[in-house]
Amino acid sequence: MLETTLAVIGEQFGLTVVGDGQVRITGISALDEAGPEDLTFLFSAKYQSRLVDCKAGAVVVSPKFADALTGPGLIAEQPRLAWAKIAVIFDVSEAWPNIHPTAQIHETAELAEGVSIGPNTVVRAGAVLSAGVSLGSGVVVGENVGIGAGSQVHANVVLYHQVQIGRACIIHANAVIGADGFGFEFDPETGTLVKIPQVYGVTIGNNCELGAGTTIDRGALTDTEIGDGVKIDNQVQIGHGSKIGANTVISGATAIAGSTRIGRSCMIGGAVGIIDNLVIADRVEITAMSLVTQSITQSGRYSSGTGLMPSRQWKRNVVLFRKLDDLYKRLRKLET
Amino acid sequence: MLETTLAVIGEQFGLTVVGDGQVRITGISALDEAGPEDLTFLFSAKYQSRLVDCKAGAVVVSPKFADALTGPGLIAEQPRLAWAKIAVIFDVSEAWPNIHPTAQIHETAELAEGVSIGPNTVVRAGAVLSAGVSLGSGVVVGENVGIGAGSQVHANVVLYHQVQIGRACIIHANAVIGADGFGFEFDPETGTLVKIPQVYGVTIGNNCELGAGTTIDRGALTDTEIGDGVKIDNQVQIGHGSKIGANTVISGATAIAGSTRIGRSCMIGGAVGIIDNLVIADRVEITAMSLVTQSITQSGRYSSGTGLMPSRQWKRNVVLFRKLDDLYKRLRKLET
Amino acid sequence: MLETTLAVIGEQFGLTVVGDGQVRITGISALDEAGPEDLTFLFSAKYQSRLVDCKAGAVVVSPKFADALTGPGLIAEQPRLAWAKIAVIFDVSEAWPNIHPTAQIHETAELAEGVSIGPNTVVRAGAVLSAGVSLGSGVVVGENVGIGAGSQVHANVVLYHQVQIGRACIIHANAVIGADGFGFEFDPETGTLVKIPQVYGVTIGNNCELGAGTTIDRGALTDTEIGDGVKIDNQVQIGHGSKIGANTVISGATAIAGSTRIGRSCMIGGAVGIIDNLVIADRVEITAMSLVTQSITQSGRYSSGTGLMPSRQWKRNVVLFRKLDDLYKRLRKLET
Repeated sequence: MLETTLAVIGEQFGLTVVGDGQVRITGISALDEAGPEDLTFLFSAKYQSRLVDCKAGAVVVSPKFADALTGPGLIAEQPRLAWAKIAVIFDVSEAWPNIHPTAQIHETAELAEGVSIGPNTVVRAGAVLSAGVSLGSGVVVGENVGIGAGSQVHANVVLYHQVQIGRACIIHANAVIGADGFGFEFDPETGTLVKIPQVYGVTIGNNCELGAGTTIDRGALTDTEIGDGVKIDNQVQIGHGSKIGANTVISGATAIAGSTRIGRSCMIGGAVGIIDNLVIADRVEITAMSLVTQSITQSGRYSSGTGLMPSRQWKRNVVLFRKLDDLYKRLRKLET
Repeated sequence: MLETTLAVIGEQFGLTVVGDGQVRITGISALDEAGPEDLTFLFSAKYQSRLVDCKAGAVVVSPKFADALTGPGLIAEQPRLAWAKIAVIFDVSEAWPNIHPTAQIHETAELAEGVSIGPNTVVRAGAVLSAGVSLGSGVVVGENVGIGAGSQVHANVVLYHQVQIGRACIIHANAVIGADGFGFEFDPETGTLVKIPQVYGVTIGNNCELGAGTTIDRGALTDTEIGDGVKIDNQVQIGHGSKIGANTVISGATAIAGSTRIGRSCMIGGAVGIIDNLVIADRVEITAMSLVTQSITQSGRYSSGTGLMPSRQWKRNVVLFRKLDDLYKRLRKLET
Repeated sequence: MLETTLAVIGEQFGLTVVGDGQVRITGISALDEAGPEDLTFLFSAKYQSRLVDCKAGAVVVSPKFADALTGPGLIAEQPRLAWAKIAVIFDVSEAWPNIHPTAQIHETAELAEGVSIGPNTVVRAGAVLSAGVSLGSGVVVGENVGIGAGSQVHANVVLYHQVQIGRACIIHANAVIGADGFGFEFDPETGTLVKIPQVYGVTIGNNCELGAGTTIDRGALTDTEIGDGVKIDNQVQIGHGSKIGANTVISGATAIAGSTRIGRSCMIGGAVGIIDNLVIADRVEITAMSLVTQSITQSGRYSSGTGLMPSRQWKRNVVLFRKLDDLYKRLRKLET
């Protein structure tokens, strides 16, 4: 367990200390749960009243709440950004210290300096692991896969052949990158669906994070592409040949079908559905569980669905939704 | 294959035998599919007519259907509960008999009596496995993970560091517990999203079941907590810092965002979406594929969405849904 | 990299060559991205205008677009079907060449000729692998599992005991077949949910494809059954005891609850939800993200949900959706 003081943290991150800088800090915690050795954070005016009962050793606040501090604190222009930076010192890494003897590494794979690999991980022919790459246990790195410097791949991730991962990426456990896209064509002669081979790969940019259980399929006629800085949560599905613009954020359980192009700096989801072959502009926000069936040309915030209501009331309204056409006709008749 | 008789089952579970107790029973099966050596169950009056053609060796019925039996049977106050209990004798376990020589167990890990571990499973430093814990093959148990007595963890599950699992839990294959929560903060200086380290863990209570491919993220400022007796189906996603009350049941493909508190004995899903930072009361039922965007303070049944209809009709009504505002205005005009 | 010529491809697949048959072909690509050694495809009249700027070495077109060719090409009655067939020659397999020494194969498992198995894969007692079966690394084949001739199982897939897979199937990475179905019964005596043992298995037909991260649960009173030729995309969840008819196609992130019977040649999803105990007819199409809560007896195309709209407009309409009942009453009053 790390032990430090408020003053040390303030100095390290360039934040002004208020009150006793010698207060001992051993962790961070939520406003309601923090104890006397925890640093906590005030993110919003709506939680200001909680400062009174707060038991934290110190609180990080923005300048306008400096006067509201009832004990030691740090002043940060952006408390959430300060949180992101300070939390690093309390974080734990499980990277393996070197290359585990049970790892199966093909003789043609290239491993740069400082690569660490966990037990039972398989690195296949032609794979290239750049400096400082860290692979967990049970990972599969397919043929000719490339992984950029400093990227971390957690346990049991599967990277199919030809997948290219950029620098400083994090891929969480059990993600699958580069499985076959979903494509079939009906053959009238045999009456069956013929598989369309998915002969392209997946390209992931730099500084991306991909969540646990996320799947990104390989392309059929072009690579599937994830831009730099894209953050993808758990259990997201991205279809073959789709392109995600830089710095877009995709929340959990979202499904994006094939050949759709999403712009830069979008905020998608969670649990959003986006059908295939659409084009979505930059800076588009799609609220949770919306379905996108048409291209979006204007940045902005979009939604679909009905609000939640008691099921009895909902059942009546669902019936009436089905009759909207009738309702409109009757209204029009009254108007004339 | 197990062989027994109706009389033996009746005695073991305290159920009254009707007719020939010597009928041989080698399995259980559905009412429509049962053969002469199968035990089957009548769960509801609406299936009573199927008793006539039923080929089962014997049928478990509630007392009010005792007269409807056309052959041997068992009388149970609650046939579904009797089913749950009787089926145990026909169940098969694949637990490994001991600790497989290919398992990688850190010297500081503590293993109590009767722990069994499959091939290629990795148990890292400081992990504590209580009595009778059973791990499948390819499992990863991270640093300082604790697993309570009698819990079963199936193949290729990944438990990140610090995750705590209670007693008598079942975790199905490829679930991921404790991957990083999804949190980033925009840094205007660099124009990039900065990762917020997720320094807390996940705590799972006793008697929980977690489905295949389910992901439960670790917390950033507090643990993610799953209460005792919670049952979670496959491919459920639970965000960082959420708290699920005891005995709540969450069906497949549901996604719950971070920092949401769900009460006790709720029934959620499947395929429900619940956004972040909500509070849901006890005994709330959310029907399939509903989206919850506001806290729910009253127990009861809630829904959202529209009903299914032929796509042609749906398209017209979707257009009219967009015009509801206009429709209301025109109605108001007619009324005045 | 494969090198061939347009003439060779034309002859191999019985397609008429237009123009210079000696053009060198080393790959296939999308119309917009193809280079001078790529073969590309014109799938639809709406992309015809792109032929002008197309840099492909040759284009596959249907007879009615033969005149639109501006360079070498192939004439195919069905360009998409030609694509599916031609792409095979550019496809790459990662099948392991033989049985890796780290694979753990139980002495009672039966392996036919030509079986290949990757590192760290586990084949348990009584499993039967037919001729030409290919298992990736980290796969778990449970007790008494059967896999038909020529089927491929990718890395880290888990097949629980008794699962039966047909011939010529493809199962992508991290899929889980045969985990316990989700069934519990409340025991009023203890106030807890009692697990219903899931004592049946899963049966997968011939020529099926199952996507990465897909989960198909084992049955409680009957097998879960996937018919011949069924194609299932990534992250699909199929509940216990459901039956999927032959040649049905299920797109990504769809969730189907237990005991539902889906007909033959249906098109489901993606991200569709289907509740339990329904019966869906043959040749039913369900559009993306629809929720099915009632049986469907007629083939046809079905949908649910509202269209996407700007969030501000959506919020107003959601409020009005809740008041549809009131709106109808007021309309009726005006009409009388």
